[in-house]
Amino acid sequence: MANFKGHALPGSFFILFGLWWSVKYPLQYLSQKANKKTVRIYCFQRVDAIEGGIKIIFALIGMLAEQFVPDGPHLYLYSGENHNWVKLMNWQHTTMYLFYGLSGVVDVFTYISQVVPLGLDRLMMSVAVFVEGCLFYYHVLHRPMMDQHIHSLLLIAIFSGACSVMLEVFLRDNIVLEMFRAGVTIVQGTWFWQIGIVLFQPWGGPIWDEKDHSNIMFLTMCFFWHWAAAVAVLAVNYTLAYW
Amino acid sequence: MANFKGHALPGSFFILFGLWWSVKYPLQYLSQKANKKTVRIYCFQRVDAIEGGIKIIFALIGMLAEQFVPDGPHLYLYSGENHNWVKLMNWQHTTMYLFYGLSGVVDVFTYISQVVPLGLDRLMMSVAVFVEGCLFYYHVLHRPMMDQHIHSLLLIAIFSGACSVMLEVFLRDNIVLEMFRAGVTIVQGTWFWQIGIVLFQPWGGPIWDEKDHSNIMFLTMCFFWHWAAAVAVLAVNYTLAYW
Amino acid sequence: MANFKGHALPGSFFILFGLWWSVKYPLQYLSQKANKKTVRIYCFQRVDAIEGGIKIIFALIGMLAEQFVPDGPHLYLYSGENHNWVKLMNWQHTTMYLFYGLSGVVDVFTYISQVVPLGLDRLMMSVAVFVEGCLFYYHVLHRPMMDQHIHSLLLIAIFSGACSVMLEVFLRDNIVLEMFRAGVTIVQGTWFWQIGIVLFQPWGGPIWDEKDHSNIMFLTMCFFWHWAAAVAVLAVNYTLAYW
Amino acid sequence: MANFKGHALPGSFFILFGLWWSVKYPLQYLSQKANKKTVRIYCFQRVDAIEGGIKIIFALIGMLAEQFVPDGPHLYLYSGENHNWVKLMNWQHTTMYLFYGLSGVVDVFTYISQVVPLGLDRLMMSVAVFVEGCLFYYHVLHRPMMDQHIHSLLLIAIFSGACSVMLEVFLRDNIVLEMFRAGVTIVQGTWFWQIGIVLFQPWGGPIWDEKDHSNIMFLTMCFFWHWAAAVAVLAVNYTLAYW
Repeated sequence: MANFKGHALPGSFFILFGLWWSVKYPLQYLSQKANKKTVRIYCFQRVDAIEGGIKIIFALIGMLAEQFVPDGPHLYLYSGENHNWVKLMNWQHTTMYLFYGLSGVVDVFTYISQVVPLGLDRLMMSVAVFVEGCLFYYHVLHRPMMDQHIHSLLLIAIFSGACSVMLEVFLRDNIVLEMFRAGVTIVQGTWFWQIGIVLFQPWGGPIWDEKDHSNIMFLTMCFFWHWAAAVAVLAVNYTLAYW
Repeated sequence: MANFKGHALPGSFFILFGLWWSVKYPLQYLSQKANKKTVRIYCFQRVDAIEGGIKIIFALIGMLAEQFVPDGPHLYLYSGENHNWVKLMNWQHTTMYLFYGLSGVVDVFTYISQVVPLGLDRLMMSVAVFVEGCLFYYHVLHRPMMDQHIHSLLLIAIFSGACSVMLEVFLRDNIVLEMFRAGVTIVQGTWFWQIGIVLFQPWGGPIWDEKDHSNIMFLTMCFFWHWAAAVAVLAVNYTLAYW
Repeated sequence: MANFKGHALPGSFFILFGLWWSVKYPLQYLSQKANKKTVRIYCFQRVDAIEGGIKIIFALIGMLAEQFVPDGPHLYLYSGENHNWVKLMNWQHTTMYLFYGLSGVVDVFTYISQVVPLGLDRLMMSVAVFVEGCLFYYHVLHRPMMDQHIHSLLLIAIFSGACSVMLEVFLRDNIVLEMFRAGVTIVQGTWFWQIGIVLFQPWGGPIWDEKDHSNIMFLTMCFFWHWAAAVAVLAVNYTLAYW
Repeated sequence: MANFKGHALPGSFFILFGLWWSVKYPLQYLSQKANKKTVRIYCFQRVDAIEGGIKIIFALIGMLAEQFVPDGPHLYLYSGENHNWVKLMNWQHTTMYLFYGLSGVVDVFTYISQVVPLGLDRLMMSVAVFVEGCLFYYHVLHRPMMDQHIHSLLLIAIFSGACSVMLEVFLRDNIVLEMFRAGVTIVQGTWFWQIGIVLFQPWGGPIWDEKDHSNIMFLTMCFFWHWAAAVAVLAVNYTLAYW
């Protein structure tokens, strides 16, 4: 959905997950350090499964929203009459949500069954993030300059997230990687909001000049301010988790 | 061979290998987990050698097909009369098959002799996949837009496959990497078929408009649907292997 | 600050840190080798904390200098009157210093508290270097050719530094990586000076022809001479540390 | 030296080193496997030092040849009269040789002194290869198409070599990486010869058409034939080493 809500919805999902992880992983790390691997681990595995379930629900909400908004494709992919594809944008977003849904399914199965090899859940999450990045990349290739730039900054967050999750396949339960993932996810979420605000002015205000180079310079810098803010949020949540 | 069969043939090879791996590796992993490294390992090593043999046979079929189809080069590389190269496309495809053949030879030798260091078979396979990717990259550089795009999506599968096999040199018998390889190989195979269908319409139908941007958007998305389907196939085969 | 001082200031910071590291890490490595992990380690941890403090001070100096030089933005970001951004260059540099400051803060906290997981300080340093690289990349995208080239050589030093520090998250106290980091930091510092000298001629002299291709060829080579000189400095300091 | 000899000289150096490594490393690996780490290791360390010495000699030969050929710069870098740089090509090649020389020096010191940390020799070699790659990259940026293509294929060999040597910093004495390095070095050497033959026709013959796309297609393929040949050479030498 090329409007403000279409950016605010996934943005909120990512912020929620990022904030949640920035509390969960410090708690898990600190409790493991203190209690030396006791009952709590089982409790955290249960939390992983619930997380997977919430991912599935969020992905379903996203997919349904993309398909059945008034100007959505309503599951039609090809219009035989006009000989053209129907609302490919919405279909692409549906595909992105689909992969996050699949990642949730693998999370749940990893909890249910001992047979599923560890690391497969991280691999699937990494693939989901990577697919999102790839689709975005081709998505914005022929857009106006500022639109393209603001999305390409998002790609930095997406691909560094995909790489860090990929590393977790081999270095599971590494607190540094998990904190990094939490931070990158928060940045992704807030930047989705920023994109929505810049491109669609939900609260009115003048339209940003697409061709003004100084706007692009400001946005580049602003992206890293989001990042600095995410680091601050991580620090606060880590301290809270410690208490 | 720039026709449907020239894409369906390698596509089928990749699908066969991908499906086979998606059964073999779960079986190997689960039996190792259950029996704690017994007689079965020898059995699986034998299977690796047979696999190498089949690779050699497939590579030979591919090379012969590329050389001796009616419009092939029939082993002529340079035409002295016309002062030009003969059917370089077919020669490039022959080169690709050659490297897969070499990979098969290394597989067989790794089984026969204890002297060949472990990991060399994976390195050779990774090089073979990488060579395929490189040749494809230069192959499609000056083609029309859709043709180039549909092949560049293939490159994502090829290079992520090459990287994952490269990792297997150092992390041998890692089930997550092996499942990823199986998935990527299936995607490569089915996408070869898709390319053949889109570019050459084996069953008739209108030609795809090379310049229509929405076709490109659809193909991008379609590629990741193949990927999602491959994940589903992996899940099913893993479950079957468990039973 | 697009003048000589604006390049000499960060350049000097980097040279100081690089030289310091090229003495500290050999000392740490050799003393550990000799004394087999004794009291000295605590001493080196204290040094890490002081280092973090100096980083914070340097970052503050840099930020204040960028904001309050006569032609700086003086903390104004947007001019309501003229409807444009104020001195974005200086704001971007402020952002770079900010991240180095954050890295210093994490260094200090890692020393103060046992609760902060090891590796987080290296991750933050790596992010700081990466942010510097990203901002530079977008910074020079539309500049004249030689200006762009001379900065893009800087990017080689920056990004290889960021990667090597990222590796230190997982391979802490690896003397080879630490020496590499020291070398890359020295190169970065001396190259900042070189950029300042080439672009702003602090001691007079003819302006470099921006379009002369041979100037670009010379600068490429000159960059690697800096690198060779840094290697020599490392070798000398290592020998001194040994004595 | 932009002539046939200027390509044949470094090409021969690389082929010699590649062939030598393709014998040395299998011997080292097989003797370690058989004798279980005995006197032989010291012997191989001595060989490493001699290798370093030969590197230094080769680098000196290369540097002197580049400087003092009749049309060389004879150590003049800047011509005050004409206000231009003197023979920058030769200076760039001199820089490349310089780094290989530095790598040789580090090899020798690693042997002489126990104080030099292990891995530093591999890091320096990796940097030397990387510097060669970077200089080549900027070197050929504005050349005619075929010239650029034939050198960019060389870059594949160079950068994959640099990455593999970089890995050896952390995975020392890994036979797979060492065989890969030997193979890549042979390919680099033979490809230098190929470039010299294609661009300068040492034995006469028609000049290659720089703009003919089929020449470029052939060269791409030919590069990987060199690679296949290098694999065959490695296999033969490994077998010889075994006997």
